[in-house]
Amino acid sequence: MSNPELPQLPVGFRVAGHACGIKSDPTRLDLALFASDRPCAAAGVFTQNRVVGAPVQVSRERLPSAEIRGVVINSGNANACTGERGLEDARAMTAAVAGQLECNARSILVCSTGVIGHFLPMEKITAGLPEACKRLADSGEEFERSGRAMMTTDTFPKLIGGQIELEGGRIALSGVCKGAAMIAPNMATMLAVMMTDAVLSPEQAQQMVSRAVDRSFNSISVDGHTSTSDTVFLLANGASGVTVSDETAFQAALDDACRELAQMIIRDAEGAEHFVTIDVTGLPDDRQAHRIAKVVAESMLVKTAITGNDPNWGRIVSAAGYAGLPFDEADVTLAINGTTIYEHGVPLEYPEETVSQSMARGEVHIDLTIGTGPGKSRFWTSDLTSEYVRLNSEYTT
Amino acid sequence: MSNPELPQLPVGFRVAGHACGIKSDPTRLDLALFASDRPCAAAGVFTQNRVVGAPVQVSRERLPSAEIRGVVINSGNANACTGERGLEDARAMTAAVAGQLECNARSILVCSTGVIGHFLPMEKITAGLPEACKRLADSGEEFERSGRAMMTTDTFPKLIGGQIELEGGRIALSGVCKGAAMIAPNMATMLAVMMTDAVLSPEQAQQMVSRAVDRSFNSISVDGHTSTSDTVFLLANGASGVTVSDETAFQAALDDACRELAQMIIRDAEGAEHFVTIDVTGLPDDRQAHRIAKVVAESMLVKTAITGNDPNWGRIVSAAGYAGLPFDEADVTLAINGTTIYEHGVPLEYPEETVSQSMARGEVHIDLTIGTGPGKSRFWTSDLTSEYVRLNSEYTT
Repeated sequence: MSNPELPQLPVGFRVAGHACGIKSDPTRLDLALFASDRPCAAAGVFTQNRVVGAPVQVSRERLPSAEIRGVVINSGNANACTGERGLEDARAMTAAVAGQLECNARSILVCSTGVIGHFLPMEKITAGLPEACKRLADSGEEFERSGRAMMTTDTFPKLIGGQIELEGGRIALSGVCKGAAMIAPNMATMLAVMMTDAVLSPEQAQQMVSRAVDRSFNSISVDGHTSTSDTVFLLANGASGVTVSDETAFQAALDDACRELAQMIIRDAEGAEHFVTIDVTGLPDDRQAHRIAKVVAESMLVKTAITGNDPNWGRIVSAAGYAGLPFDEADVTLAINGTTIYEHGVPLEYPEETVSQSMARGEVHIDLTIGTGPGKSRFWTSDLTSEYVRLNSEYTT
Repeated sequence: MSNPELPQLPVGFRVAGHACGIKSDPTRLDLALFASDRPCAAAGVFTQNRVVGAPVQVSRERLPSAEIRGVVINSGNANACTGERGLEDARAMTAAVAGQLECNARSILVCSTGVIGHFLPMEKITAGLPEACKRLADSGEEFERSGRAMMTTDTFPKLIGGQIELEGGRIALSGVCKGAAMIAPNMATMLAVMMTDAVLSPEQAQQMVSRAVDRSFNSISVDGHTSTSDTVFLLANGASGVTVSDETAFQAALDDACRELAQMIIRDAEGAEHFVTIDVTGLPDDRQAHRIAKVVAESMLVKTAITGNDPNWGRIVSAAGYAGLPFDEADVTLAINGTTIYEHGVPLEYPEETVSQSMARGEVHIDLTIGTGPGKSRFWTSDLTSEYVRLNSEYTT
């Protein structure tokens, strides 16, 4: 019986997590499968990096589509910077899954995450795939295993699931992702699979997943390093029979689910001791607000100040200042954890010790107002600790 | 008698370093003066940050000029984010120096570096200035003291001086700078004063210092954080009587001097264990090469890999990939310390242990070729160590 505390899957989806021996520890799960019993409208959002892994190239050319039947993901090897052979291997993975699910190879999507520049151990993958397919189930337990099978340096699987009442009836939306920055010599990645039994067209799926990603996975940063494999899929198999005529409600639910998953990545960020939310408001438009939020989030000096529970407003304001956007210092107001410490360009007297103590509890909320425009952005990040440096500088042969 | 091993000053310049008590340790030098016995053609390059310190605003509006007589610099307090009173204080500093040198206040330039958001202790500065002026001398020892008086978290003064044979005769060029990233709750800064006895017009000075800064101070990064006070001045007092008709030779000398000083900043970078040179070639133009070099230099994952002596080409190539410029992976070739490890998009077999050992000696040279175009850029950076995090996260009340 399925554990009711675990997130559940939408109707018509089955998943699996299996250990093929791709990772050095053969007991660790490293192959995740996501299958729908009927074709899905599917869309994807991919890394903006010019250097992309083979699976990104293969999946990208298959989307958007109305014929997607499943996704196969391996961890432990990114299949990136592997040239023609890498592309052949990625296609072979989809063909092997298609053989098991009795569909066309082009109906299968593929992702890989892990060490870069090594060829996939295809014999292990093809040997393990039939067993993985046998495991396919719609239980919360197997959903959790699929999440574990995507993990590299993650310390916990990242799942979400819920139901949404639309005009036409109730639908389900579930998602799973992985990500925790990167660790030598691995190139880890942000991957997510969102599944719903709502009825969507491929074009609807593409529009809605792109919007949701902007507000979630594109609004987090651990170290500002865009991986070669970042991928988010949305699969809609229509099993509920409920069409999404009310796009606003579905979009809101998808945004929420992606945001929850994105925040789990930040909570699992390598070496992190603080969870940081950055709100930027008052800019002429959301794009400008997003740009400033990102620069503040990625400033090493802001991050290290937060590590030290230091409400160092000078570092935050000056980081905003080098985002490349014009603004007047007299329009800048800053609050940390609810205490205004810089107002209209002037530093205020404030209870520094109290603010520092509130930061020490591990949650930091930065409210940066620049101007009186309608543009706003919310961004999440982690701090920068010696442990991050240790994790990422340890030399492994 | 002047120590011949110290860099010397050009004819007509005198300098001083004095302790006014701005820093908490009253024995530490914190006021630097640079004076010319005749008016200088002068130009400056300033921070691109939208939030700038009061001295930047005051100095910027006075340049370029043919009437500059001196520069006053204090350390220990950045006079930034201090509003109208900060501007008044900066102007008052120049007026006080002008009174001593018997010139117009507009002939004096000003810089401040140190803690942000605090008003300058003007009574200490005005009390110390006459003594500082009495110290003005053209000796190498006093030149070194002026360099020390600019330091915040720097561990050594950064000076250079030399002579250049131009067509019209011999001229001298000397410079001094400070910079070593930032430390809580200080906002440190990159400041430099370049002095020559060559004859230059203000327009020549502006053009040449802008070019030199692009190739030196704008081609280094410790943590990617643009300070609110970054400033480089070039003062040409013409005392040699030699006009710079051969701009190429003078530009080369100025470039060299600025580059040497910039490299001293990287060698003094907070917590750094590696000095890193990044050469990017093959792009359509220098701008694009510079952009990629900067992104690689500022990647936390590249920096931590270098800390661990790890020739992690995946991090370097993928950092180049997110610089926002189009290129083909098959056009990318990478060498570290002379060993090619990635060629035309394909990883090579190479002696990993040997390359790692060469990195462990503390100097890392990254050669990144992307395409066959004429664009190139050379950039310098440091690694990212736990010591940097410790220095920048320690909370000081």
